[in-house]
Amino acid sequence: MPAEHAAGTVDRLAEERIDHRFKALPPDAEGLTVGELAAERRNLFTGGFLTPVLALSAEALEHNLALMETYSERHGLAFAPHGKTSMSPQLFARQLERGAWGITAAMPHQVRVYRAFGIERIFLANELVDAAALRWLAGELEADPGFRFICYVDSVRGVELMDAALRGSSRPVDVVIELGAGEKGRTGARTEADCAAVADAVAAVPTLRLVGVAGYEATMPGADREGVAEWFRRLTALAVDLDKAGRFAGAEEIVVSAGGSEWFDVASDAFAEIPELSRPVLKLLRSGAYVSHDDGHYRKQTPFNRIPEEGALQPAFLLWAQVVSRPTAEQAFVNAGKRDAAHDLGLPEARVVRDARDGSIRPADGIEVTALSDQHAWLRTSEDARLEVGDWVGLGLSHPCTSFDKWQLIPLVEADGTVTDYIRTFF
Amino acid sequence: MPAEHAAGTVDRLAEERIDHRFKALPPDAEGLTVGELAAERRNLFTGGFLTPVLALSAEALEHNLALMETYSERHGLAFAPHGKTSMSPQLFARQLERGAWGITAAMPHQVRVYRAFGIERIFLANELVDAAALRWLAGELEADPGFRFICYVDSVRGVELMDAALRGSSRPVDVVIELGAGEKGRTGARTEADCAAVADAVAAVPTLRLVGVAGYEATMPGADREGVAEWFRRLTALAVDLDKAGRFAGAEEIVVSAGGSEWFDVASDAFAEIPELSRPVLKLLRSGAYVSHDDGHYRKQTPFNRIPEEGALQPAFLLWAQVVSRPTAEQAFVNAGKRDAAHDLGLPEARVVRDARDGSIRPADGIEVTALSDQHAWLRTSEDARLEVGDWVGLGLSHPCTSFDKWQLIPLVEADGTVTDYIRTFF
Repeated sequence: MPAEHAAGTVDRLAEERIDHRFKALPPDAEGLTVGELAAERRNLFTGGFLTPVLALSAEALEHNLALMETYSERHGLAFAPHGKTSMSPQLFARQLERGAWGITAAMPHQVRVYRAFGIERIFLANELVDAAALRWLAGELEADPGFRFICYVDSVRGVELMDAALRGSSRPVDVVIELGAGEKGRTGARTEADCAAVADAVAAVPTLRLVGVAGYEATMPGADREGVAEWFRRLTALAVDLDKAGRFAGAEEIVVSAGGSEWFDVASDAFAEIPELSRPVLKLLRSGAYVSHDDGHYRKQTPFNRIPEEGALQPAFLLWAQVVSRPTAEQAFVNAGKRDAAHDLGLPEARVVRDARDGSIRPADGIEVTALSDQHAWLRTSEDARLEVGDWVGLGLSHPCTSFDKWQLIPLVEADGTVTDYIRTFF
Repeated sequence: MPAEHAAGTVDRLAEERIDHRFKALPPDAEGLTVGELAAERRNLFTGGFLTPVLALSAEALEHNLALMETYSERHGLAFAPHGKTSMSPQLFARQLERGAWGITAAMPHQVRVYRAFGIERIFLANELVDAAALRWLAGELEADPGFRFICYVDSVRGVELMDAALRGSSRPVDVVIELGAGEKGRTGARTEADCAAVADAVAAVPTLRLVGVAGYEATMPGADREGVAEWFRRLTALAVDLDKAGRFAGAEEIVVSAGGSEWFDVASDAFAEIPELSRPVLKLLRSGAYVSHDDGHYRKQTPFNRIPEEGALQPAFLLWAQVVSRPTAEQAFVNAGKRDAAHDLGLPEARVVRDARDGSIRPADGIEVTALSDQHAWLRTSEDARLEVGDWVGLGLSHPCTSFDKWQLIPLVEADGTVTDYIRTFF
């Protein structure tokens, strides 16, 4: 699918009609297309939006996109941002415009979404042994010679299942061997001997082609910088050894991929040390959470904390919820809960209050989120906290992946509150 | 909106096209309508579905719908099942066919979805102080004289905000005073004096009409049977006192509502004790989780554990995920994670394994879910556990509300694996 087609399918999202499917969108926008509503440039606070409403900062998004482009370029890395974070073709298009090599996926369903929007290079950072998904994939590869697809394999049994499903397909599927991040880590072969056995199995079937090695460092229990660096040394050594053994003879380039949003500085250092191999090396970083960043887990974990001279990401999300109850001086309840806010890596954080009486915005001093129900957040307020029924509270969130996935159409908001676009997600 | 119209809008869901929006649906069903795919009566295991796939048992669903209809009838209760659980108009239609008075909502967005599918009686179990939502609501009430709507109010400030937004509307909005479930509970006025002040405020504005009292007992921290029963005595006494004070003079009936999925037996007992009031009393139960029930929180908390002679709910969900990695004898990883499974009130529970080699199904002996990543579940396997890459694991889930909301089109599956319909949700 040529690039102009990809752009065309993303543009068509503007033709979708606003209706009851999209929470928070103004009821009086029902029947407008997304493009028509965007053209109205409504204000987030006064334009008829219902609470809770998740706002994505246009400026912070642009900053983050630019920063990771610069970072990747500076370190000589290819970048396939993890698309599972946002599942938004509009953001994929902007990531690709910003020089991304392709988009990473976790699941075949995500690959389907990407293909529906014309993504030409997809790295599936997972095993794929589902026969129905493999048959669909083979059809995509056959129909589009420009479609580049790579996925993990970490077991001989997986190779057998892939081969059985792919028999008779016209193009082999490119695979990379996944090296597990430690004995107690997540998926991935645990030892170099296991990896060699998988490589043998791949070499023995006509339906697969070995093109590299990969893994995911952040699932190593109790990982620290040295532990992660040590794993990266194993990963790059594995690439060297497999290359020496002629395992990449069928490949045009050798893929070495890792690097989520917590350790891409360590990945950069390790990838810089890869010696010359028999073929060009595609050093592929896969961070996804950077696109919105956050006010919690990734604020603490981002590599930019260790390398401040290279920049800083900005939290792009603010979840606006309305105070619906203020039953005591110590308690308040807003109308956003587990249905609206990430809650798996820490609770939301009250950042600002928009006063219902005069529209002024002030810091959320003395206001703390203590729990979430399905549709409410529980706030504890100190004596000096000013907060009334009707006020809006702007909540910072922790964990982009479980923030995006609660919203199907997200207002893109400029600093003055003007909504300039709507970001569609497909979860 | 007449009932036949409501049925018509639900029927039109069968005309929706299958595409990349709906994870797990067979890739080769792309372009079919939901109705066409349902008519194919595919098998869940062999019909081309991708994993993970959430299956809703047709038999368990039917059993649960029938059981709560019987329960409500036996105890003389009206029933407005909480629709936030499923957000599925098809299930709402079946609940209404089963005698439900109406459907409960938590948020104005949910009310919009209900109205789009012709629901005529809606109980919003929450405060509503959002001016944009109130203006939309006033329009709905004006356009449809048959639309019955009731919501909470728990503060004088809330009354003021409602009145300001509703000025000039043609029909008053019916409100019930929310009594908080204990000093440390969630929303709701804390004292009878607070409730009286709210009643005074409602009486003073032309845009609202007081029709009853309500609350939600399950958010009382550390609630036990006696604590909940005591709160119910306060709630029903509040209704009696407000009635004696002539506060319901404008109402045709007096609404007394509470009763989630944890304490509806206590609600039944308390509602049976309500003396004769000046008007007929609508004793309105609002349980939502019963529709799918679960294999975790509600299995432990259901009132039917205390009243086994009245029946038992059946868990209707099974989340099928595929083993993608088996890196050690103690570890396995399936391709379902936080994106697919409820994880806020306990982890999923491995219940059955479908063998990839012969399609046989056996109990998931020796297999335990120990953690979820975004797109993976971590399984610990004992020495005797039989589990291979490619096998499907059927996971029981805890918490219906956060199970439904991860799926937009859910196969309805008969015991033999035949998919007979697809349940659309709107979150």
